[in-house]
Amino acid sequence: MSQSRLVTLEQDILAKNNGYAAANRRLFAERGILALNLVSSPGSGKTTLLVRTIEELAGRFPAYVIEGDQQTSADAQRIRATGAPALQINTGKGCHLDGHMVGHAVEHLDPAEGSLLFIENVGNLVCPASFDLGQHANVALLSTPEGHDKPAKYPVMFRAADLVLLSKSDLLEVLGDFDVATATDHVRGLANAAPVIPVSSRSGAGMDAWLAWLGDAS
Amino acid sequence: MSQSRLVTLEQDILAKNNGYAAANRRLFAERGILALNLVSSPGSGKTTLLVRTIEELAGRFPAYVIEGDQQTSADAQRIRATGAPALQINTGKGCHLDGHMVGHAVEHLDPAEGSLLFIENVGNLVCPASFDLGQHANVALLSTPEGHDKPAKYPVMFRAADLVLLSKSDLLEVLGDFDVATATDHVRGLANAAPVIPVSSRSGAGMDAWLAWLGDAS
Repeated sequence: MSQSRLVTLEQDILAKNNGYAAANRRLFAERGILALNLVSSPGSGKTTLLVRTIEELAGRFPAYVIEGDQQTSADAQRIRATGAPALQINTGKGCHLDGHMVGHAVEHLDPAEGSLLFIENVGNLVCPASFDLGQHANVALLSTPEGHDKPAKYPVMFRAADLVLLSKSDLLEVLGDFDVATATDHVRGLANAAPVIPVSSRSGAGMDAWLAWLGDAS
Repeated sequence: MSQSRLVTLEQDILAKNNGYAAANRRLFAERGILALNLVSSPGSGKTTLLVRTIEELAGRFPAYVIEGDQQTSADAQRIRATGAPALQINTGKGCHLDGHMVGHAVEHLDPAEGSLLFIENVGNLVCPASFDLGQHANVALLSTPEGHDKPAKYPVMFRAADLVLLSKSDLLEVLGDFDVATATDHVRGLANAAPVIPVSSRSGAGMDAWLAWLGDAS
């Protein structure tokens, strides 16, 4: 297959996705829903952060969650245990959520006016960066065990981040080789001025700053 | 675009890739090279493991490394500091290495007869699973901070693994919520009988078992 045919195809797929994303965006605007796309490597602690966040919000905003995974519905079950409605999308061989999947999930979840919609994307620092879901902001998690160099190595994702949470910050001392300032510098090196906040779902450190950001965004 | 047209396209791309992979496999066979494809999430410690492995091999087998990353040549530089030849491939927006990229890298590296070729794929638990590089075996790393459930959530990759290394095993005690038996059960749940070995590049735990596996595979 020629390179130009591949590029045309990519454009076709993205154009179609953008149509679905635009429809999601209109629905979010009509209902005053804040939609956030959470992205990270596998195992960076997205679900654990959401569970703690929903608990700490304690109904201040009604929260809804769309969970993306290749397989299993374990994450949606963990979210539902908090009382928040959650829907699991299994992508099978797919490496990211797309606008169409999210549109269907929103139809099922039917989020209330003025609610918060968390979209937990498939754990992947590459593919989700290319697919608009209609979200208002991208929240990228970088867990401290992954190393502070990841923004430089996965620039497309971290350039698109509106907020970077350095998750599992309780491990900073044990690890000894993750430097918050260096991680922040790597984000700035991508011409991204997004806030970079260390946070631990385990100890609760940084949760206030993250909840304050959520409050400002709502 | 219709679903059937997309499936046909995927088949076209994979068929083309398989041709390149087959050529790589022939070259590896002719020269008696053992080629290993290392896959994992970003930040699971593939490069750190390779650095320590090459040091411990101490020239028992000549080792060569192909490094895949979206951007930066940091990993290849770290490998070269051990004295082993290394070549960095930057995939840009791409989420995996393919047979064609590896073929060109092998041409440049020109690995000696009877050598070990480590191919460190882009950090991604989804996309690299679909692309044959001509390797003899897949070594999947799962770092303990990622959680023991990842084989169930990324089944395509862990089903294809010939060896699973539970990296950063020195953190097991600090984390307290990663169970080696459960991780192993999740791999077995995919009908995969591959060895599952906890290993720490920091403490050296498990390095003997990993080097023994390498010796048997060579």
